[in-house]
Amino acid sequence: MSTEERVRGALEDRREAVNEAIREQLPVTRPERLYEASRYLLDAGGKRLRPVVLLLTAEALAEVESCSEDYRAFPDLTGGEVDIMSAAVSIEVIQSFTLIHDDIMDDDDLRRGVPAVHKEYDLETAILAGDTLYSKAFEYMLETDAPAEREVRALDELATTCTEICEGQAFDVEFESRDDVTTDEYLEMVELKTAVLYAAAAAIPAILLGADDETVDALHGYGLDIGRAFQIQDDLLDLTTPSEKLGKQRGSDLVEGKRTIITLHARNQGVDVDALVDADDPENVTEADIDTAVGTLEEAGSIEFAREMANDLVASGKARLECLPDTEAHSLLEDIADFLVEREY
Amino acid sequence: MSTEERVRGALEDRREAVNEAIREQLPVTRPERLYEASRYLLDAGGKRLRPVVLLLTAEALAEVESCSEDYRAFPDLTGGEVDIMSAAVSIEVIQSFTLIHDDIMDDDDLRRGVPAVHKEYDLETAILAGDTLYSKAFEYMLETDAPAEREVRALDELATTCTEICEGQAFDVEFESRDDVTTDEYLEMVELKTAVLYAAAAAIPAILLGADDETVDALHGYGLDIGRAFQIQDDLLDLTTPSEKLGKQRGSDLVEGKRTIITLHARNQGVDVDALVDADDPENVTEADIDTAVGTLEEAGSIEFAREMANDLVASGKARLECLPDTEAHSLLEDIADFLVEREY
Repeated sequence: MSTEERVRGALEDRREAVNEAIREQLPVTRPERLYEASRYLLDAGGKRLRPVVLLLTAEALAEVESCSEDYRAFPDLTGGEVDIMSAAVSIEVIQSFTLIHDDIMDDDDLRRGVPAVHKEYDLETAILAGDTLYSKAFEYMLETDAPAEREVRALDELATTCTEICEGQAFDVEFESRDDVTTDEYLEMVELKTAVLYAAAAAIPAILLGADDETVDALHGYGLDIGRAFQIQDDLLDLTTPSEKLGKQRGSDLVEGKRTIITLHARNQGVDVDALVDADDPENVTEADIDTAVGTLEEAGSIEFAREMANDLVASGKARLECLPDTEAHSLLEDIADFLVEREY
Repeated sequence: MSTEERVRGALEDRREAVNEAIREQLPVTRPERLYEASRYLLDAGGKRLRPVVLLLTAEALAEVESCSEDYRAFPDLTGGEVDIMSAAVSIEVIQSFTLIHDDIMDDDDLRRGVPAVHKEYDLETAILAGDTLYSKAFEYMLETDAPAEREVRALDELATTCTEICEGQAFDVEFESRDDVTTDEYLEMVELKTAVLYAAAAAIPAILLGADDETVDALHGYGLDIGRAFQIQDDLLDLTTPSEKLGKQRGSDLVEGKRTIITLHARNQGVDVDALVDADDPENVTEADIDTAVGTLEEAGSIEFAREMANDLVASGKARLECLPDTEAHSLLEDIADFLVEREY
């Protein structure tokens, strides 16, 4: 089996359990429109990468056979039980909240092949749906039945993560109007906006199950590394994956003038990145224009630079998993790291 | 001294401590624009009613002399210490987050005499500033140094409260487009949108200081009662206070077609509330038009009905304070209940 097949299998094996838990923990109750809007994007699909990372980390730590345990009464490392699924739902719900609010901020029309929540409903409902998911995520993290000391620590990780995601998004918005962004600033933004939620997904099960601090820190580092790699791969895919596979316009980052590690590298190589496509006339940017722009970025070595950085991060992330016992779940967490930079959409 | 003087004194005595704590716990760091926007409304003023209710409740429970204690190392009921100020900041920060997002949803231009955050900055920054305050509130509630069991309970109260506020706001939006809203539905909306945060402000100090469940429940009930009374008084003031004192257009609820307990009562009395002012032509609604509308509502007994309901709620709220020892702080909590329905703006 290829890495991709193993990862897709691991996701598939756990995705329905996650989806069922979401439907159970986030029922459509009064006010219906609010809860329908809150569920809309969650119901529209998604790979569930972050909650599956959380479940796999728990499985690896508890050394249980993959998918063999009841995630609602999961064995912790001290002879107790925790509802690890509730933590997984919490993380996915945070991801969904950030997507809803980000789509408003970026005025994106589509997400997961369906209209963004503020398009399907309206601005008010989308803001409120995001706000509702936000507090629900904290409620779910409080429902794990872990000992209070661990719950407090998990909530602290969750709250800090949410603050950092906001900071990352603020930097992202700020960078669009600046032409002196450095690669370090960009990588800090990616860490905050994207990687910290992977870090939380990997660290929180360790906290809840009662792992030692060293293990918690190592898993946090794994999440940061693969989260950064994930974002860099996203930036690459935006340039190299056909629009129909991507589910959105290829080259949209170039058209929207978004900084990426690729364009920042190119600028350092003397490329006039603002001239790559005519951002003032986005309607008339053709596939051929994007091809030409990608060619220029390839010549500058920027595509290769980004690929290498993503690969290095994946290698670093995998190395941090050494703290885990040698189990199938451990292997799958390595596969996920590889998959994040091998995936084509 | 009048009730108002005593309450204004109690607020004044504690407001600067709360403001200093906000500046200390929410410094303007990178990304500066995000944190400036997050602080903007907090710096613009506000009575700090909710955090002062929280501090007074703590003082009453601990039976300390008013303002005599260090709120950062406040004596709890079991011989320990908690940072009760951090909880007070948390509650005020939640209030500020909801105002920022509500102003976007209602497209209100002014708040506390200054432009709303989405007007002073922009939509993106206002959404993000609200989201940042949201997670910061959870961070602050985690910084009280209370025993973990109590912190978990306080966080649960905070998370549930935030969810309920969102539900209340969703009902409020829904009601604007419905003409069959009942008074029970309206009161449920007010409880969710407004009263639960007062309930949290009164119950959370009891949780953190280690009070028994009966006391926690009684204080929660006090908050619900005075919070509902507060909103009904707000609805009354919108009709009866001159625009310059109110800081916004008198009768704005009528002009915007907002349901209030007053218009719902009037409709039940056979008044055609939609014809009270010409909501289709808000620019040309005069003070005289509002006077005529208020006259009609008075004749229908609707103003008096709302006044009585607010007074009953205040009496009920004060009765619930019987669980507290007989201290100055206890009296001030009674005064605040009275003040909420006696205030003129």
